[in-house]
Amino acid sequence: MTNYALLASAAESFVLKGDIVYCKGPQELVSVEGGYLVCVEGRSQGVFEQLPERYSGLPLRDWSGKLVIPGLIDLHTHAPQFAFRGIGMDLELLDWLQTYTFPEEARYRDLAYAREAYEAFVRELVHGATTRAVVFATVHVPATMLLMELLEASGLITMVGKVNMDRNAPDNLSELDAKSSLAATRAWLDEACRREFKRTLPILTPRFVPSCSDELLAGLADAQRQYELPVQSHLSENPAEIRWVAELRPDARCYADAYLRSGLLGGAGCPTIMAHCVYTDPDEAALLKQREVYVAHCPTSNTCLASGIAPVREFLVAGMRVGLGTDVAGGYSPSMLHAVAEAVKVSKLRWRLVDQCAPPLTVTEAFYLATRGGGSFWGEVGSFEPGFEFDAVVLNDDDLPQACADTLASRLERLIYLDAGSRVLEKYVAGTRIGL
Amino acid sequence: MTNYALLASAAESFVLKGDIVYCKGPQELVSVEGGYLVCVEGRSQGVFEQLPERYSGLPLRDWSGKLVIPGLIDLHTHAPQFAFRGIGMDLELLDWLQTYTFPEEARYRDLAYAREAYEAFVRELVHGATTRAVVFATVHVPATMLLMELLEASGLITMVGKVNMDRNAPDNLSELDAKSSLAATRAWLDEACRREFKRTLPILTPRFVPSCSDELLAGLADAQRQYELPVQSHLSENPAEIRWVAELRPDARCYADAYLRSGLLGGAGCPTIMAHCVYTDPDEAALLKQREVYVAHCPTSNTCLASGIAPVREFLVAGMRVGLGTDVAGGYSPSMLHAVAEAVKVSKLRWRLVDQCAPPLTVTEAFYLATRGGGSFWGEVGSFEPGFEFDAVVLNDDDLPQACADTLASRLERLIYLDAGSRVLEKYVAGTRIGL
Repeated sequence: MTNYALLASAAESFVLKGDIVYCKGPQELVSVEGGYLVCVEGRSQGVFEQLPERYSGLPLRDWSGKLVIPGLIDLHTHAPQFAFRGIGMDLELLDWLQTYTFPEEARYRDLAYAREAYEAFVRELVHGATTRAVVFATVHVPATMLLMELLEASGLITMVGKVNMDRNAPDNLSELDAKSSLAATRAWLDEACRREFKRTLPILTPRFVPSCSDELLAGLADAQRQYELPVQSHLSENPAEIRWVAELRPDARCYADAYLRSGLLGGAGCPTIMAHCVYTDPDEAALLKQREVYVAHCPTSNTCLASGIAPVREFLVAGMRVGLGTDVAGGYSPSMLHAVAEAVKVSKLRWRLVDQCAPPLTVTEAFYLATRGGGSFWGEVGSFEPGFEFDAVVLNDDDLPQACADTLASRLERLIYLDAGSRVLEKYVAGTRIGL
Repeated sequence: MTNYALLASAAESFVLKGDIVYCKGPQELVSVEGGYLVCVEGRSQGVFEQLPERYSGLPLRDWSGKLVIPGLIDLHTHAPQFAFRGIGMDLELLDWLQTYTFPEEARYRDLAYAREAYEAFVRELVHGATTRAVVFATVHVPATMLLMELLEASGLITMVGKVNMDRNAPDNLSELDAKSSLAATRAWLDEACRREFKRTLPILTPRFVPSCSDELLAGLADAQRQYELPVQSHLSENPAEIRWVAELRPDARCYADAYLRSGLLGGAGCPTIMAHCVYTDPDEAALLKQREVYVAHCPTSNTCLASGIAPVREFLVAGMRVGLGTDVAGGYSPSMLHAVAEAVKVSKLRWRLVDQCAPPLTVTEAFYLATRGGGSFWGEVGSFEPGFEFDAVVLNDDDLPQACADTLASRLERLIYLDAGSRVLEKYVAGTRIGL
C-alpha cells in the first residue's frame, strides 16, 4: 500500500564514517573500526575499510570514534500503554488487562488525552535507537489515525493497528459486535489508504482470541485479503489465557490453529507477527514455521507479567522467523537495547532452570534478532550489507572507559546493558536523517 | 571504630515537605502525600500530615509534589569492577573471574588508574539513590585507602574491604601467601584507624573460599576479633563454585560451614554479609539464620552470570536477614532502584519456573529489602520511623504522566522500573545533605 520508492528517492546519498557494527548472521557480528558506511538513495552499499574511489564524491559525515549500528526493530509494542509503563506489575496477563490495561485504553476515546499520550510515545521512540516498530493502537479509529499521523511525521517507519475486540472487555472499551468492529476497521483502512502515508502502514490487529468472536476474525480475514494487509496478534503467552482459548475454540488443535482456522495465520500474502509464544510447543512451532509467521519475543513483558520464558533457542534451531519486541507496557521499557539485554538474561535463566540443552542466547544473537531478525519483516532491513535499506543509529560512548572495551563487540555489549537509548547522536531511517 | 555521634552533631535539623513513601515492614508501605518529614540532629522524628507545633521553628525544605524515599542500601558491590560493567557477560562465575575480573582488578596496583576508575564509581554512587554501600575493593592497600578517602569525601556512608586472596588467582593479582596477605590487611586496618574516617568503615573481605587458604581465613578471624570488624564474602553462588569448595574444604558440612569453621560466619560481635546464596538449602539457611548473617541478594548478577535465582521468599519466610546488592560488575547496573526491579522480576520467574509455592516478591517487599532490610546492618537505617538515621532521597517524576499514577505507591513502582537514578534532586545521609 505504501510506496517506499518515494522514500528512497527522497533519501540522500552520503558516507558515514565511524566504528561500525552489524550482524550478517545470528552468530556473525561484523565490526569495522573507522569504517566507511555508504548510503546511496536510501540503501546501504556496504561497509569499507577504505572508501572506494567511486564514492569519493559523496558527502562524508564523520562520526569517527562513535559506534554506528543498524536501527533497531521493535516487532511488538502498544502505544496506548506507554503512559502507564512501570505501573501495575503485580498481576498476571488476564487480570492485568482487566485491571490496568483496558481502563487505560478506554481513555483513548478522548482525542485530547490520546494526543498528549501518543506525542510522548512517539517522542520517546524517536529519541531511542529504534527505527521501525509494529504498534498496537486501541479500538478507536480517530485516535489510531492520530497516532499514524504523529508517527508519519516523526520519520520512523511503522505499522500501526487499530485493535479489534468485540467480547470479554468492559463496555467502555469493547466494540459492540463483530459487525460494528468490522465497519470501523474498514472505515479506518479507507481513511489510512486515502492519506497515502509514506512510512506508516496499517496492520490488522485482532487483540487476541479471547477478545475476538469467530465472526469478527472471519470478517478480518476477508479484509486482510481485500486490502492485502499484514496481521499482528498475541499467541500462547500465559497458561490461563491458553486454557481459556481452548475453551473458546474447541475446534482448534492449538492456540495458533485458532488463528489459522480463522484465516489469520500467515501464509502467502498474509505476513503475520505473533507476540510472545512462551508456551508454543514443537507442534505449534511447526505450524508457525510452515506459515512463515514471525515470533515477536518480548522478554521483559514475559518476565513482568510472570508469563515465563519463551523457548527462543528452540525457535532458532528450528529455523523460525524471530524478532524482539518491547511490548510496552507488559514491558516497562520502550528501549530495544533493553529488550536485547533482557533476551540474553532470560535465556540464561531458562538454560539454568528449565533446559540445559538450550544454550543461552549470546549478545550477538539477541542483537541479530533486534536488527536483521525483526527487520526482515520489511524485507532487506536490519543490516549494512549491500542492498539493505539504510537504517542506522550513531551512539556516543565517549564518557565510558575505553580501556575495558577494547573491541567494538564489547563496546556494543556495554551499550546494550547500559541501555544507551539516551546516547543516540543521529538516526537514519531508509536513508533519511530524522530529527531527534 | 567510627564515631557516628560526630556525624549526628554535624547534621542539621530541618523539615522536608513532599510526597513521602517508606516501609515499616516487608508488606507495609506507608505513604503520606504532602507530608512533613522531620529531621533533628541526623535522626528522623517521623512523618506527619500536619507539621507539629514543636517543629514549626525548623527550616522547611519544600519539595511539594516530589517523591521522598529512604536512601537505598547496597549491601554488595565491587568498586574496581565498575569500569567494565556491561562487558563480558558470556561466562559463568569461575571463568568470568579468571577471564575478565582478575585481569581488571590487577590494574589497581596502578594508583593513577585506580584514581580515575574509583572517582567514576563514587561519582555514580553519589548521583544515584544509594546512601550507603558495602564495597569490595581489591587486594591493594594503597588503592583501597584511596577508595576510602574518595568515599569519605563523598558524604556517603560505606564499609570498604581490602580483598584477601592467596590462592587460585593469577600471579599479578594474588597475594603471595597467607602471611603476607595478613600483614597487608593489618597495615591497611592500622592506616584506616589512624585516618579516623567518619563515614567509612573497614570491613574484612576474604574474597571467597576458593581464593583463601585455611591459614588465611584463620588469621582473618584473629584480626576480626582484635579490630571488632564486620565481615563480607560470597556464598553458594554457582554450582561449579560450590563443588570446588566441597573439594577444597572436605571438613565443612556445607559452603557456609567452611566460613563458620574458620571463625568468619556471623555470631556475636561479628556482623557478616554473604552475597548471593543462590543455592543455599534449608540446612545452610538455618545456619545463616542462627549466626544472624545477612544475605545480600544480587538478582542482576545472578541472572547475568547464569547462576540462577536465590530462594529469597524462603529466606523471608524463615525470618532471615536479607538485603539487596547490585554486585557490580556481575551486575551491570550500580543502581539500587534497578536491583529492586530485578529482585521482583526474577522472583516471578522463580515462581513460574521453579516453585509455585514461593509467591513472587511484591514491589513493596523488594523496596523493603533495599531500604530497611539492608539498612538494619547499620542499625536503625532505611525507614522514616522516629529514631531512624535520616537517609533520604528526593526524586523528580514531574515529566511522567500523573493521570496513570494516582497513588504514591504506583509513582514509586514506576520510578523503580524506570530506574530513576538520574532523577535524584537531593540526598541526605544521616541528616547531612550531600552534594550531587
